[in-house]
Amino acid sequence: MIRRVREAAGHAPPGVKVAIGDDAAVLALAPGAVLVATTDLVIEDVHFRRSSASPADVGWKAMAVNLSDIAAMGAEPRWALVGLALPDSTEVDAVDALYAGMREAAAPHGVVIVGGDTSTSPGGWMICVTLLGEHAGSPRLRSGARPGDAVAVTGTLGRSAAGLALLQAPTAAGVGEDTRAELTRAHLRPAARVAEGRWLGAQPGVHAMMDLSDGLATDLGHVCRESGAGARVALDLLPVAPATREAARGLGQDVLDWATGGGEDYELLLTCEPGAVDSLARGLLATTGTRLTAIGRIESSGDAITYVDAHGQPVTVRAGYAHFHE
Amino acid sequence: MIRRVREAAGHAPPGVKVAIGDDAAVLALAPGAVLVATTDLVIEDVHFRRSSASPADVGWKAMAVNLSDIAAMGAEPRWALVGLALPDSTEVDAVDALYAGMREAAAPHGVVIVGGDTSTSPGGWMICVTLLGEHAGSPRLRSGARPGDAVAVTGTLGRSAAGLALLQAPTAAGVGEDTRAELTRAHLRPAARVAEGRWLGAQPGVHAMMDLSDGLATDLGHVCRESGAGARVALDLLPVAPATREAARGLGQDVLDWATGGGEDYELLLTCEPGAVDSLARGLLATTGTRLTAIGRIESSGDAITYVDAHGQPVTVRAGYAHFHE
Repeated sequence: MIRRVREAAGHAPPGVKVAIGDDAAVLALAPGAVLVATTDLVIEDVHFRRSSASPADVGWKAMAVNLSDIAAMGAEPRWALVGLALPDSTEVDAVDALYAGMREAAAPHGVVIVGGDTSTSPGGWMICVTLLGEHAGSPRLRSGARPGDAVAVTGTLGRSAAGLALLQAPTAAGVGEDTRAELTRAHLRPAARVAEGRWLGAQPGVHAMMDLSDGLATDLGHVCRESGAGARVALDLLPVAPATREAARGLGQDVLDWATGGGEDYELLLTCEPGAVDSLARGLLATTGTRLTAIGRIESSGDAITYVDAHGQPVTVRAGYAHFHE
Repeated sequence: MIRRVREAAGHAPPGVKVAIGDDAAVLALAPGAVLVATTDLVIEDVHFRRSSASPADVGWKAMAVNLSDIAAMGAEPRWALVGLALPDSTEVDAVDALYAGMREAAAPHGVVIVGGDTSTSPGGWMICVTLLGEHAGSPRLRSGARPGDAVAVTGTLGRSAAGLALLQAPTAAGVGEDTRAELTRAHLRPAARVAEGRWLGAQPGVHAMMDLSDGLATDLGHVCRESGAGARVALDLLPVAPATREAARGLGQDVLDWATGGGEDYELLLTCEPGAVDSLARGLLATTGTRLTAIGRIESSGDAITYVDAHGQPVTVRAGYAHFHE
């Protein structure tokens, strides 16, 4: 298995002095850089179901959720360690596909697998990826939001929740095949905003940043609590993709529930100087092709978040996100 | 749960710029140091049984097996990330005890928990610890053994296997309570040879080093394969504790099976200049109180390992180690 993982991991790039096969990996950061480190678990029947996610999808997601955490720091992801527990009955092809999915998510960002551990699992599949990155300056934290800041998000919200709903509803009236494909892919193969995070994290106007893994309501709550501030969010400003609206109509769901309460979009949430949001949006679009949308502002009101409709009236939104769990 | 883990992890020491609570930890290595990183899984009913290991034992072991990997590189362990999946029914006291066990193993080495992830587990307990350390020079690798090198081990061999055998045999004739306590502790609370690894790894005569997690026969095989060399081991030189011999007699087991095939001793295995072994042994004893014992030599014979008895006759030994798994 070590040999298999070593081959699957490919050749060691610069910075990797010792990779898979010794007691530990030996890695060299750029001079003066700080180390950024995160770990995420991806567990069968909690975070995915094998009936709807292929082994390659599972590998992709296990890597992508970690890439997203590094992206949220504005850091450069470099090296991954993979703890992998699989039942004895797992086919070798499935193991290969799992690693291929991890590599497919990692390689565009220059990330290589440098170590890990494998075990039999008496239960289902369990993947624990640790991702190590580096940052030449000061990573953007959840705690950096200041009253008066604009609140903005990359991309669109609710696509992953829409994709999950479609996976659970094989037939949905009025939902086209392209829409289904786009949204299920958004759920199964989320794209971590690595280039976006690095660019945004390097802009002086950006004060706080995190990734949207548990849904806007929950995650903005983290920013507010860590920053000792509140927020006001205009629901009509939330960016929602046409495909997501189409799926909501087809399934009879409220698209705002997905946008505020749906998790796993892995978009970036940031707060910035209120005057900087337009130039940030233009710069991000020019640099990465990704949109940045202002959705509200940080307020000095405790750590409460107020959601308002198009008429400025406060409304209650779906908060929190129960991971896929029966 | 994040709050609980944050509190359990204690205050952030120097080098920790951002710990638990953000998307990732931010850590500063000493200038010029290389990063050393390892991940190990500890899984219920594979690596431990809850009937014989307390939550604190499990936490201890999950940390200790990673400390041992860093020790084997001659590196300084610094920071841990903990991926933890537990059934919904797990008592809060058990979670606290698990973290307390991790801290108890980590704290004497200055290691702090700086991040991680928690999840519900549809199966049993699953802990994935990633340990990050640093090294100011060149870590000692498995691949450094040279023909003519002496082969040596720290401490004694077979205690963990003896402890496991005693846990599975609640009554064993002629095995005293002190012996039982010593050996079951060796199995449940292995001591990583961190100070020993740092001292040995800094000595110029030491060429290769690894930790004994899978048993001497398997692990020396790794050193030989990675170094393109063979080895000859004198079984009568293997250091075995009196308690281990007493348990073998009481259980009617062959103590050499435990010494060569038993895993989880987490002693260090090294190869060194043949003339250096005596001074290394004296220095290690003076510095750490731990014995170093020469048990054989590296040979240029392919990657085969020959075990010989007290008369120099080749004998077949138990190789490999099946982790605790029914």
